[in-house]
Amino acid sequence: MRRFLESLKMLVFGRPIATGREQRMALRTRLALPVFGASLLSTVAYAPDAVLDALRKGGQGTALPWMAAGVCAIMILLGFAYRSNVRKHPDERGDYGTVQDQLGPTAGMVTGAALLVDYIFTVAVSVAAIAQFAEFVLPVLEGYHTGIALAAIVIMTLANLRGIRERARVMLAVWFGFLLVIGALALVGALQGDLAGTATVKADATWSAAFSFAGAIASGAVMLTGIEHLASSAPYHAEPRAKRAGRTLILAVLAGAAAFLAASLLVWKYRVSGWQQGPVLLQAAERMFDHPAALWAVAVPTIAILYAAASAVFRRFSGLTSLLARDAYLPRQLSQQSDRLVFRGGVIWVSSASALLVIGTGARLEQLVHMYLIGAFAAIVLSQVAMVRFQRRRIALELRGRGRLRMQGTRVLHAAAATVGAGVWIVVAVFNFSAGAWLALLLVLLLVFLMRGIRQHYAHVREQLAIETDDPASARPSATHGIVLVAQLHRPALRAIAYAKAARHSSLEAVGVQIDRNATVELQRRWGELDLGVPLVILDSPYRDLVTPVLDHVRSIHRVSPRDMVVVYVPEYIVGRWWERFLHNRASMRLRERLLTIPRVVVAAVPWHLESALGTLESEALTRELPRVELREAGQDG
Amino acid sequence: MRRFLESLKMLVFGRPIATGREQRMALRTRLALPVFGASLLSTVAYAPDAVLDALRKGGQGTALPWMAAGVCAIMILLGFAYRSNVRKHPDERGDYGTVQDQLGPTAGMVTGAALLVDYIFTVAVSVAAIAQFAEFVLPVLEGYHTGIALAAIVIMTLANLRGIRERARVMLAVWFGFLLVIGALALVGALQGDLAGTATVKADATWSAAFSFAGAIASGAVMLTGIEHLASSAPYHAEPRAKRAGRTLILAVLAGAAAFLAASLLVWKYRVSGWQQGPVLLQAAERMFDHPAALWAVAVPTIAILYAAASAVFRRFSGLTSLLARDAYLPRQLSQQSDRLVFRGGVIWVSSASALLVIGTGARLEQLVHMYLIGAFAAIVLSQVAMVRFQRRRIALELRGRGRLRMQGTRVLHAAAATVGAGVWIVVAVFNFSAGAWLALLLVLLLVFLMRGIRQHYAHVREQLAIETDDPASARPSATHGIVLVAQLHRPALRAIAYAKAARHSSLEAVGVQIDRNATVELQRRWGELDLGVPLVILDSPYRDLVTPVLDHVRSIHRVSPRDMVVVYVPEYIVGRWWERFLHNRASMRLRERLLTIPRVVVAAVPWHLESALGTLESEALTRELPRVELREAGQDG
Repeated sequence: MRRFLESLKMLVFGRPIATGREQRMALRTRLALPVFGASLLSTVAYAPDAVLDALRKGGQGTALPWMAAGVCAIMILLGFAYRSNVRKHPDERGDYGTVQDQLGPTAGMVTGAALLVDYIFTVAVSVAAIAQFAEFVLPVLEGYHTGIALAAIVIMTLANLRGIRERARVMLAVWFGFLLVIGALALVGALQGDLAGTATVKADATWSAAFSFAGAIASGAVMLTGIEHLASSAPYHAEPRAKRAGRTLILAVLAGAAAFLAASLLVWKYRVSGWQQGPVLLQAAERMFDHPAALWAVAVPTIAILYAAASAVFRRFSGLTSLLARDAYLPRQLSQQSDRLVFRGGVIWVSSASALLVIGTGARLEQLVHMYLIGAFAAIVLSQVAMVRFQRRRIALELRGRGRLRMQGTRVLHAAAATVGAGVWIVVAVFNFSAGAWLALLLVLLLVFLMRGIRQHYAHVREQLAIETDDPASARPSATHGIVLVAQLHRPALRAIAYAKAARHSSLEAVGVQIDRNATVELQRRWGELDLGVPLVILDSPYRDLVTPVLDHVRSIHRVSPRDMVVVYVPEYIVGRWWERFLHNRASMRLRERLLTIPRVVVAAVPWHLESALGTLESEALTRELPRVELREAGQDG
Repeated sequence: MRRFLESLKMLVFGRPIATGREQRMALRTRLALPVFGASLLSTVAYAPDAVLDALRKGGQGTALPWMAAGVCAIMILLGFAYRSNVRKHPDERGDYGTVQDQLGPTAGMVTGAALLVDYIFTVAVSVAAIAQFAEFVLPVLEGYHTGIALAAIVIMTLANLRGIRERARVMLAVWFGFLLVIGALALVGALQGDLAGTATVKADATWSAAFSFAGAIASGAVMLTGIEHLASSAPYHAEPRAKRAGRTLILAVLAGAAAFLAASLLVWKYRVSGWQQGPVLLQAAERMFDHPAALWAVAVPTIAILYAAASAVFRRFSGLTSLLARDAYLPRQLSQQSDRLVFRGGVIWVSSASALLVIGTGARLEQLVHMYLIGAFAAIVLSQVAMVRFQRRRIALELRGRGRLRMQGTRVLHAAAATVGAGVWIVVAVFNFSAGAWLALLLVLLLVFLMRGIRQHYAHVREQLAIETDDPASARPSATHGIVLVAQLHRPALRAIAYAKAARHSSLEAVGVQIDRNATVELQRRWGELDLGVPLVILDSPYRDLVTPVLDHVRSIHRVSPRDMVVVYVPEYIVGRWWERFLHNRASMRLRERLLTIPRVVVAAVPWHLESALGTLESEALTRELPRVELREAGQDG
C-alpha cells in the first residue's frame, strides 16, 4: 500500500529535490516581464467586459472609450508609484513587507490578509474566464461551466504541488502571443469599416450617469490586481535587481494599459453585447472575421495567459503564507517546504478556497469580479500610504536641495496613488457591497482575527517554553513506575511486558480493567499459568469505561509519590491497509489521549505489526533511496 | 472546555449507570404488548395507503377489501409461525439467532445484514409518515417535509443516546390509544351512511389486474416488518418467558390485522384519494367528521405510535449491531456499552443511515415503502426455513405418535410461512426493483461483504496474536537505547531529556535534524552552554524532511545491534482548546506514526501541558465523581 502510494507520489510530484539544488532565478527584463507580468496582462481578458457592463447598466455604453482612458491613466499613475515601491523594497515580501516595515506589524498583517483574499479571488476569476472562453469556442462544453473551472483548478493544483514552474521562454511566447493577438485585432479594427455610427458620446450629467462612470472605473481597476505580483519580483531579477524590477513593472503596466485600451475600443466599435453573450473579445473577433479559426486564434492565447496567471498566483499565495507562517501569523507547518521545494500547505489552501468560491458562485465571472477588488485595493492603498511614510522619513534625513525635491515629488506620487486607490476601494466597497464585496470584506476580517489569534497564541506559548535558570523541567524524577496495560493476554501484551522489563523501572505492574467478571477470572487464571514475574492488578470499572479506572490508578500512584514518573506501556497495532484502522486501536488511542493530560506520565506505544503491515515494511526499505546520513556529535565536548 | 463538555454531556445524556444497576425488564403480556408491538401496529398508519396505491395503478381500487383480507390471512399465518419461533428460541437474538443456530453462521450473517437494512428503512419510513401526518393537520409545516423527518430522527437519536426507554405504562396508553382511535373510526364508519355505491368489486381477470393484486399484497406485507421485534422480546417477559412472548406476539399480530382491516374498509368506503393528498386515514376522518378536532384526534395518537415504533427500532438496531460485533462481524467497539448502558455506535449508525435515506428520497413515503420489504422478508424467509430444519431435527428424535404429529403440523406451518414469505419477497424484488428495491438489495449485499471481510480479518489477527510456547514476543531485548528528539531547545525538550535519563537506558543521545544550517549551529552552541550530560547528534536532511533521517538513524542502530530496543522520546504538547490542535504536534504525530512502523521501537510521548490545558486539568478532577477503585493482585502468588 505504502509502496504503491510512494510510487504514485513519485510519478505525480516527481523526485525529491535537495536543498542545495534550489535554483534562484536571475532573469533579465525580457524574461521577467512575461513571468511576473502575466497576471496583470491576463486581466484584459475580462476587464473590458466588466467596464462595459457597468456602463450599460447606467445606459452609458457609448462612454466606453473615455472610461478606458481613465482606467489607463490610473494604471499609469499606480505603475509609476509601484516602480518606486519595488526599487525601495526589492524583496519577495511585496506589499506585505513594505507595509510591515513602514507601518508596523498590525498593518502588515492586515495587508497580508487582504492579499491572501485577493489571490483566492484572482484564481477564481481566472478559471471562470477560462471556462467562459472555452465554452464560446467549443459549444459542446456549455452547461459544464463550473466543471471546467474546477478542472482548471485541479490541473493547477497538481502542477504546483509538483512545483512545475512554467519555463520563462514558454511564458515569453504566451505573453507576447496574447499581446500580438490584441494588437492584430486592434489593427484590423482600425482599418475595417467606419466608426461614424458610434462616435458620439452622450454623457448625461445626471447622478445615474455619475454612478455608472464610477462603477465603470472601479470595474476597470481589476487591471491593477496583478501589480503586487510584479512588486514582489525583485529577488528573481538579475542584478541590478531593484532597478531591473522597476523597469519590468513599468513595462508590464504600459503593455497592459495599451492592450486594455485597444480591447475596449474594439468592443465599443463593434457594439458587442454584454458578457451574458460570451467574452466581449470573442464577440468582437466574431463580428470582424466571422470565421471560427479567428475565434480559436483569440481564445487559445487568452486561455493560455489566464492559466499562467492563475498558476503564478498559486505560487505567490503559498509563498506569502509561508512568510506569514514564519512570522507566526499562520500555523507553523505552512512554512515547511516539501521535498519538491514547494509550500504544499499553501497550495492546498488556495486551491480549496478558490474551488469553494467557484462552486458557491457557479463560476459566474460577473459576480466574482465584483468581489475581488476589495482585497487587492486594500493592499494597494496600505502600501502606498506606507511609501508616503517612507519618503517622509527619507526627506527628513536628506538635506540637499535636488535630491530632496525629487523625493518630495515621489512622495506626491505615492500620495496621489494612495488617494486614487482609496477612491477606487470606497467606490467598490459601496457600489458592490451587496453584489459580493461584503464576502471579500468578511473574509479579510476573519483572516485578520484568525492571524492575530494565532500570533498571540504562539507568542504566549514561546514565553511558556523559554528555559529558565535551574529550570524545574530539568528535574529528574526520583523513581519510575512502569504500568503495562493488559486488555487481553495475547502476544502484543507479552511483548509490552518484555519491553517494560527491559526498561528496569523502580516498580513494574500489569493492569487489567474489569468490565466482565468472567473474563477477569479467566485472565487471572492464565496470568498465573504463564508466570511472567509481574504482578497483575485488576481495576474495577462499574461504568464499563476502560479509561477512567486507569487514570485514577495513575493518580493514586502520584498521590503516594508525587515526584515519580509513571510510564504506561500501551500495545498498539500497526496495520498495513487503510481500512484496518477502523478495526483496531480505538480504545488505546482514547486512553493515550486521556493519559497524557496527567502530568509526569509518559505513554510508551509498543507497536505490534500485523502481517499486512509487515509486507509493506519490507518493501519500503527497498523503494526508497536512502539519503546519506551525516553524523556529527556535539555537546559532550561543547 | 473539557469541564463544559462534561457538564453538557451529563445534562444531555444523564449520569453514568453502574453495571450492577442494569434492570432487566420482566414484563407481563399486558405491558409487553405495547412495548414490543408498537412497531407492528404503527404500520397501519401507512400500509392501507400503499395497498390502495398499488390497486389504483392497475385500476382495481374497488378490490381493496379483498386485498386487505388477503393481507390479514398472511399476517395470521406468519403470526402463528413466529409464535413457534419465539417459543423455541426465546432469546434476544431474534431471527439472527434462529438462523445462526439452525442454518449456520453464513446464513446468520446474511440474516443480520438483512435485518440491519430493514431497521434503517423502518426508521426512515416511520419518520416520513410522521412528517406526512404533521403536515396534514398543520398546513403551516408544508414544504418542510424532509426537515420534519430529520428533526424526528434527531430527537430519537438524542433520546436513545441518553438511553431513555419509554415507560411501559406510557407505551400502553400510546398503543391502546391508537387502537381505540381506529376502532372508533370503524364504528362510526359502519353506522354512517350507506355502502351501496361502492360495494361491487370489479375484479377483471386480466394480467394487469393480477399484477395489481400481487403488488397490493406485497404492499400490505409491510404490516409484517415489526414481527421480528416481537420475536426477540422473550428475555424481557416475565416467566414463563417463551410462552408469554408467544402470546404477546399472537395478540399483537391479531390486533394489527384487525386495525389494518378496519382502516382499509374505511378508506374504501369513503373513497379517499391516493396518498398524494395526504395520509388516507386522515382523509377518511376528514370526510367522516369534517372538523379539525377529529383530524387532531387521529393524527396525535398516530404520530405517537410512529415515534415509539421508530425509537424501539433504534434500540433493536444497536442491540443487533452489538451482537454482530461480539461475533466479530462488525468493528469491536460497537459491542461496548456506554456509561448509560447504551450501544452508542449503533445508535449513531442507524440515525446517520436513516437520515441519509430521508435526505436522498426527500422523505417520500411512497418511494421508501417500496424499498424496505427486501430486508424484512429476507429475514422472515430465512428464519422460517431455519424453523423447518429445526422441526425436522426434533421430529427425527421424537418417536411417540401424538407429539410427532403436532411437530409435523408445526413444520407444515413453517413451510407454508416460508413459501408465502418467499412469494412476497419475489414479488417485491421484481415489481419494485426499479422503484428502489435495488437499493435495499445492494445495501444488504454490501453489508454481507463488509461483515464477511471484518470477520475474516479478526479471525486472521486472532491467529497471529495467539501466544505460543516459548513465545518470541516474550524475548527481553538485550539492551535499550534512548533517543530524545530535540527540535528546539526549550522546556519540553529539557523535560524529555530528564525523563529519558531517569529511565536508565544502556545508551542515551539527543537527536536534532538539520534543515537550516544556521539554526543547527545555534542549537549546538546552546547545547554546549546548558551542559546536559547527553550527546547531541545532528542528522542532515537534504530534502527538508524531519521524519526520514530519524527513521534511518534508528535503523542504523538496529543494524549494529539487531536485538536491542530503541525508545524514542517525543515531546508532545497537550492543549486545552480544540483549535490549538491545528497549531501544534503536526510534525511529531507524523514522526510517531512512521517510527512505529519499525519493529523493536517504542515511541514514548512526553507530555508538555500548555497553560490552557492545565486550567482544564484541575477542574476535571473536581467535576467527576471518582468511582471507587478496587485493587486485587494476582499472578505473584497465582
